[in-house]
Amino acid sequence: MASGLTHEQAEALVQSHDPEHPANLICDLCRDFYKLGWVTGTGGGISIRKGEHVYLAPSGVQKERIKPEHIFVLPFAQSSLPKPGSQRDFLRIPSKEGLKESACTPLFWNAFTMRNAGACIHTHSQHAVMLTLLLPREADSFKISHQEMIKGVRLGGVGKTLRFFDTLEVPIIENTADEEDLTEGMAAAMEKFPDAPAILVRRHGVYVWGNTWEQAKTQAECLDYLFEIAVKMLLAKLPLVGDN
Amino acid sequence: MASGLTHEQAEALVQSHDPEHPANLICDLCRDFYKLGWVTGTGGGISIRKGEHVYLAPSGVQKERIKPEHIFVLPFAQSSLPKPGSQRDFLRIPSKEGLKESACTPLFWNAFTMRNAGACIHTHSQHAVMLTLLLPREADSFKISHQEMIKGVRLGGVGKTLRFFDTLEVPIIENTADEEDLTEGMAAAMEKFPDAPAILVRRHGVYVWGNTWEQAKTQAECLDYLFEIAVKMLLAKLPLVGDN
Amino acid sequence: MASGLTHEQAEALVQSHDPEHPANLICDLCRDFYKLGWVTGTGGGISIRKGEHVYLAPSGVQKERIKPEHIFVLPFAQSSLPKPGSQRDFLRIPSKEGLKESACTPLFWNAFTMRNAGACIHTHSQHAVMLTLLLPREADSFKISHQEMIKGVRLGGVGKTLRFFDTLEVPIIENTADEEDLTEGMAAAMEKFPDAPAILVRRHGVYVWGNTWEQAKTQAECLDYLFEIAVKMLLAKLPLVGDN
Amino acid sequence: MASGLTHEQAEALVQSHDPEHPANLICDLCRDFYKLGWVTGTGGGISIRKGEHVYLAPSGVQKERIKPEHIFVLPFAQSSLPKPGSQRDFLRIPSKEGLKESACTPLFWNAFTMRNAGACIHTHSQHAVMLTLLLPREADSFKISHQEMIKGVRLGGVGKTLRFFDTLEVPIIENTADEEDLTEGMAAAMEKFPDAPAILVRRHGVYVWGNTWEQAKTQAECLDYLFEIAVKMLLAKLPLVGDN
Repeated sequence: MASGLTHEQAEALVQSHDPEHPANLICDLCRDFYKLGWVTGTGGGISIRKGEHVYLAPSGVQKERIKPEHIFVLPFAQSSLPKPGSQRDFLRIPSKEGLKESACTPLFWNAFTMRNAGACIHTHSQHAVMLTLLLPREADSFKISHQEMIKGVRLGGVGKTLRFFDTLEVPIIENTADEEDLTEGMAAAMEKFPDAPAILVRRHGVYVWGNTWEQAKTQAECLDYLFEIAVKMLLAKLPLVGDN
Repeated sequence: MASGLTHEQAEALVQSHDPEHPANLICDLCRDFYKLGWVTGTGGGISIRKGEHVYLAPSGVQKERIKPEHIFVLPFAQSSLPKPGSQRDFLRIPSKEGLKESACTPLFWNAFTMRNAGACIHTHSQHAVMLTLLLPREADSFKISHQEMIKGVRLGGVGKTLRFFDTLEVPIIENTADEEDLTEGMAAAMEKFPDAPAILVRRHGVYVWGNTWEQAKTQAECLDYLFEIAVKMLLAKLPLVGDN
Repeated sequence: MASGLTHEQAEALVQSHDPEHPANLICDLCRDFYKLGWVTGTGGGISIRKGEHVYLAPSGVQKERIKPEHIFVLPFAQSSLPKPGSQRDFLRIPSKEGLKESACTPLFWNAFTMRNAGACIHTHSQHAVMLTLLLPREADSFKISHQEMIKGVRLGGVGKTLRFFDTLEVPIIENTADEEDLTEGMAAAMEKFPDAPAILVRRHGVYVWGNTWEQAKTQAECLDYLFEIAVKMLLAKLPLVGDN
Repeated sequence: MASGLTHEQAEALVQSHDPEHPANLICDLCRDFYKLGWVTGTGGGISIRKGEHVYLAPSGVQKERIKPEHIFVLPFAQSSLPKPGSQRDFLRIPSKEGLKESACTPLFWNAFTMRNAGACIHTHSQHAVMLTLLLPREADSFKISHQEMIKGVRLGGVGKTLRFFDTLEVPIIENTADEEDLTEGMAAAMEKFPDAPAILVRRHGVYVWGNTWEQAKTQAECLDYLFEIAVKMLLAKLPLVGDN
């Protein structure tokens, strides 16, 4: 580790009695997300940025059983997007053998750098996936309007909240064989759709971010609700946009 | 605060070891409602009136993580419906910065003043919303009969319980851009449908009340059950009224 | 109370540190049934018979919040089926004002007397109700075969377990305005279908019994599973009986 | 017992304060599986092999209420597949009267001997059963591709993980009257489909295994997710294989 931290300093980064410390929160929230069906089978998760530190869950483990000592810590100030597997810029690497940081790391970084987000959530929610399957193959976004829950979503994920009559638009990008290869596609969609609060990935799931972990979580809930009701509306042949 | 209470007196309003104290109950019930999918993404909630005090959750926060110290207390005896943002008649305002009382306050007040209710629940249940989407656009109410669960619902929400052969009717009002603008529409529907135990809001959710928090909650459960089974019946092309 | 018990003797009937004491079990199981959606909105419940004592939950209360002190105890040896409201044969009546024994009492008694059951469960499961709505109006029973879960159900609810190739048949009776008026219809169906492990009530729910509370509960789970999958099969136009 | 163990030695096999001891894990995981709807009504379960010991839940009991003292222990080194009812090779038999080892024992053994698995899970998930009902009657396997969740499944259940573009194939065998009679059919399917990570049983459920209990569980979650979304896709007439 080139971080210059002693072992004790590195360990202290994930040790706290405060339930709202990022290392504790990630474990707590992953348990909740598991119950929601968002992170089943090791997929999905949440990364929290607090000041100059970014906290990450490990990859490929049961998300509902993570403990604070499994959390990775990276400095936010990186010369470039961190690539999975690279260890050069870690502040803390868990001592348990075989743990690797989440494969979503560069995707979370998109949210941190392009939107100045404080947290980013990735889910494999079936509502998100079914929505990308039911929409026309050529659709590059999901649109919905006239739903109260739209009001819980912020412009670009971090701006002011949408209004009931606004049309929410969430881009859909194609999935890739390796998760880190989504990085560019996600960044391009975030540039093309600056107001979008999230990125859907066809046949995969969704990335949602917010100013804080609370906003990221509540927006992820609002969006998942909207994905679910949109699936029901599509199956019932109801239009997603408009009030008729 | 013009309430004339000292800080200690105001704080004492939400401090109790009794799990059935309104400030504790609201937190407990919101956790339960979250698991039912009623208050996902900060939406929905419950207000309890106990004697001359009305207890309210804050707006725009995670409802499953509210603590008693976040609860607002208003006097029931107000010269007029309290408007959100107005602070003139509060007995207690949480000290945590940025908290605002629920935007539903004037809607809860409708139930307290027009039905003498002891509690009012607002949910964003998808069953309620899907029902308002599947019923004809011009329908101003939902009707169902011949369901055992109808017997758990009271006339006007606070009178005697319905019978199996009775037809339950719940008015549907149109949603508005701002929640407080629903106040008049809800009041008008309550006048037009004096026997209705609840008000559905199209593309939004439902308001349910009762003499006590127990009755409000059990009626909200019965109604949500009926909304859910009505959605299933409509999708299966089964008639909602009658026994055939 | 004509039971001849002192107040202390009556209270002792529901006081035990043993989690498997009927008064504790009923509270525990009702919490579990609530999570399964079986006893939402005060409906449904379970009665347990242990030796000469029958333990009953109160009527019209939140079933997931019952406490042992709310439990009624009746002697099993009654000159006739107990009628709701009758107090002559109670061994214990809760002191909390306004509590009445479950309206299902005489229906539970059918299972105790006609099948020598040790426990009887009543649910308002939507799977049971939807099944009675999707089957033809004139059908007086539900039949299904070739499902592994059939093997968890016992002949007449208390005999030997069914085999995979057996056809399970559960009678359906019409609902009545008052729950106790179902008593005769349930008894008649139990006589006509001696092998049936349960009675479905159209637009209402189901009554399931077993030799013990464990068997009643696991059979209720197997049957609810079969009701649910039968609803899905009917909606997908798959035949319920046979292997094609 | 011909195991040569003293009573104390046999009991010690299931007594541990380590939550990851197989006897504790089986109880813990069965509670979780119950919440997922996998082991409702006594069906389903998990067996864990640790070194030369195989830990088994009892048959026909409520899986969410198993305690470590109910666990059976067998030596892995058996002259042949253990038959249910045979007691000759047990290391520990619970003292509670009437307990029998899981009827799935010889099926779990298939996974241990043919794939060198460390754990095997059996579920009655409705997603698995509905999938076997919706696929054509003559289909001897389920195939799906282009789903992110495929990447959580390993070749043969114990090899390298599949890739997004790979087609997952899970054989389907016919159910039999007695569970142990599935043993040969399962073994034959495992030989014919060496890459398959699980075996579906028509109108019954699924068997899933892995190198460790963690891998068995996460693969069971990924597969259950894929069964569920495949059912939704089939009902919506979407193709399971390919990207269109």
